[in-house]
Amino acid sequence: MLLFSVSSLGVAADKHTLRLAQTWGPNSPILGETTLNMAKMAEEMSGGRLKIRIDSANKHKAPFGIFDLVRNGQYDMGHTASYYYKGTIPNAMYFTTVPFGMIAPEMYAWFYHDQGMELMQKVYEPFGLQSFPGGNTGNQMGGWFNKEINSVADLKGLKMRTPGFAGEVMAELGVAVTNLPPGELYTALERGTVDAVEWVGPALDFPMGFHQIAKYYYSGWQEPGAEVQFLINDKAWNKLPKDLQAILRIAMRTAAYDMYIQTTHESGVAWDRMKEDYPNVTHKTFPPEVINAMRDATNKLLAEAAEKDDLAKEIINSQRDYLKQVRQWTNISDKAYLNSIATD
Amino acid sequence: MLLFSVSSLGVAADKHTLRLAQTWGPNSPILGETTLNMAKMAEEMSGGRLKIRIDSANKHKAPFGIFDLVRNGQYDMGHTASYYYKGTIPNAMYFTTVPFGMIAPEMYAWFYHDQGMELMQKVYEPFGLQSFPGGNTGNQMGGWFNKEINSVADLKGLKMRTPGFAGEVMAELGVAVTNLPPGELYTALERGTVDAVEWVGPALDFPMGFHQIAKYYYSGWQEPGAEVQFLINDKAWNKLPKDLQAILRIAMRTAAYDMYIQTTHESGVAWDRMKEDYPNVTHKTFPPEVINAMRDATNKLLAEAAEKDDLAKEIINSQRDYLKQVRQWTNISDKAYLNSIATD
Repeated sequence: MLLFSVSSLGVAADKHTLRLAQTWGPNSPILGETTLNMAKMAEEMSGGRLKIRIDSANKHKAPFGIFDLVRNGQYDMGHTASYYYKGTIPNAMYFTTVPFGMIAPEMYAWFYHDQGMELMQKVYEPFGLQSFPGGNTGNQMGGWFNKEINSVADLKGLKMRTPGFAGEVMAELGVAVTNLPPGELYTALERGTVDAVEWVGPALDFPMGFHQIAKYYYSGWQEPGAEVQFLINDKAWNKLPKDLQAILRIAMRTAAYDMYIQTTHESGVAWDRMKEDYPNVTHKTFPPEVINAMRDATNKLLAEAAEKDDLAKEIINSQRDYLKQVRQWTNISDKAYLNSIATD
Repeated sequence: MLLFSVSSLGVAADKHTLRLAQTWGPNSPILGETTLNMAKMAEEMSGGRLKIRIDSANKHKAPFGIFDLVRNGQYDMGHTASYYYKGTIPNAMYFTTVPFGMIAPEMYAWFYHDQGMELMQKVYEPFGLQSFPGGNTGNQMGGWFNKEINSVADLKGLKMRTPGFAGEVMAELGVAVTNLPPGELYTALERGTVDAVEWVGPALDFPMGFHQIAKYYYSGWQEPGAEVQFLINDKAWNKLPKDLQAILRIAMRTAAYDMYIQTTHESGVAWDRMKEDYPNVTHKTFPPEVINAMRDATNKLLAEAAEKDDLAKEIINSQRDYLKQVRQWTNISDKAYLNSIATD
C-alpha cells in the first residue's frame, strides 16, 4: 500500500500537459493529422506523462494569430506556417519556402546539416520562442487556370488568387492579385470572378473541387517545399524534464517528416482520381519565358529584402549558397534518373 | 529514505539493454552514424532506461550474417540491408530497392501508406523477426567508368564491379560482372583490372577516391532509393514495456529519415569537392538505348521471380502498381519543377 501511494505521487508530479493552438480547423486533412500524430507519439513514448491538448481554429478563433498566442503564453505551443507572420516578423517567412528555392529533402538538409536551425532560432529567440520544422507539403502546384499561359503577356490583367511572396511576384508581372477566403474560391473560379487559383497540391486541392471547373493544372515554382512549423514558448519548454524535452523534440521531428511522406502519398492518390473522374484536366508547365520572368521578379524582391535588413540578407544568402551546392547533387541523382525514364 | 529506495528499485527493474549487430564497421560514415543516432535518441527519450549496445563488424565478424545473428537471438537487433540475404530469404531484397523502382519519398510512402510494412512483415514473421526501414541512401549513382558507354555494344565484355540485382541485369547485357571486396576496388580500377565500379553515391564514394582515377561518373538506374533496415527479434521486442516499444519504434523511424537527409547533404558537399579537386570528372547519363535495355532485362528478371514465388509476385506487383500512381505525382511536381530551371 505504501509502495502504491509513493509511486502514484511520483507519477502525478511528473505529468505535463501542453496546450497547442493550430492554424487549421478540426479534422483538417494532413495538417491537422500532423499535430495529432505528434501528440500521439509524445503520449505513447512518455507512457502518458506528456499530453498535448490541441485547440483548432474554431476554438481559439485566431488561425493567423498563433505566433502571438504562443509568444504571450496563452498557449504553450503552436502549429502554423511562419510566412503567415510576414507583417510582425518578416524574416520568419524564409523558413517556410521561397520561390525557386529548395525542394523538401534539400530544405531538411539545410535545416539539420547547414545553417537552417541556427538562423531560425536567431529569428525567434527575441520573442522567447523556439521554432521547429513542422511538416512539408512537398512541391506545391502553380495553380488552376481557365486560360493557357503561353507568354508573359498572357499574365497581364489575369485575375488570380495567390497569396504571399508568390502574389508579390505575380503582381510584378501584371497579374491582378486577389486574396479571397478559401470558402469563396470555388464559386469565384466557376463564375469567372477570378481566372486562376493557387492552393496547394492534389492532396489538398482535391477536396476543394477545382478540377471540376478549371481546365489547366500548372506545375509550381512558388513553393517548392513548404515547411510548416511547430512553435514552443521557452517557459513551457524549460519546465519539461530532459527526457520529455527529448520526446517532444523527436515527436515533432518525426511528425514533420511523416507529413512530407503522407502528402506524397495522398497527392499521388488524389491526382490519379482527378484524372480518372475528369479526363479533361490537363497538366501544363509554364513556358521558359514565363518562368524566367517569375524568377527575375523573385530575385529582385529578394535583393530588395536583403538590402533592407541584415538578418534577411544572412538567411537569403545562406539559402542561396546551400541550394547552389545541394541542387547539383539533386540534378545528377533524382532529376537525371526521372528524366532517363522518359515514357513514364 | 524509503521513498529513495522504492524509487531506485523501480527504476533499476525497468532498465533494458538491447544488443545490436551492424553490417558496418566502427565509425562507418552515415550508415554507422545512423545506429548511433537511433541509440542516442532512444536513451535520451527513455531517460536512460533503454540502452542500445552496438557491435560493429570488427567485433561480431559477420557483416553479412546479421539476419542469422538476430534470428538466433545472439543479438536482439540488427542494422543491415535486406538484399544481402538474397540466398536465405530471397523476398527480402525488394524492401531495399529495385532497379527502375521508387525514389526515397515514394518508397517511404509505399512503406507507411500502402502495403510496404505489411508485406515486409509477411516476409520476416516466419523467422520471429520484425523489420523496419533503417535509412535511405538516396538515389545511387550508376558507377565510375573509364570508358564512355554510348550503346549496348559498349557494355559487352566490360569488366565491372556491381553486386546484387544490378549485377544480374548487367550480366544479361554482356557485362563481365565481378564482385571484388571494397578494399581492392581502387587498385583494380586504377590498374584496369576492372573498367568500372559501382559503389553508392558521392557521400560514400568520396572517401574511396574513385574520382581521382576514373573519368566518367554515370547517373544511376539500379538503386533509386535504397533503404537499409533495422531487424528486431520478437522475443526482445516483447520483453519491452509499451512506452519503450514506442520509443524504439519512433527512434528507428526518425533515424531512417535522418539518414536520407544526411546523405542528401553529404552527397552535395562531396560532389562539390570532387569537381573542385578533379575538374576532369565528367557527369554522364546512359543513353536511352542503354537505359531501355537495362529496363527490359530488369522486367524480365522480375517476371521470372514473380513466376516462381507467390509472395514475390505480390510484392513486385504491389511496388509496380504503387510506383505507377505515385510517379505521376512526382512527375508533375519535383520533376517538372527541376526541369523548369534548365540552367541550374
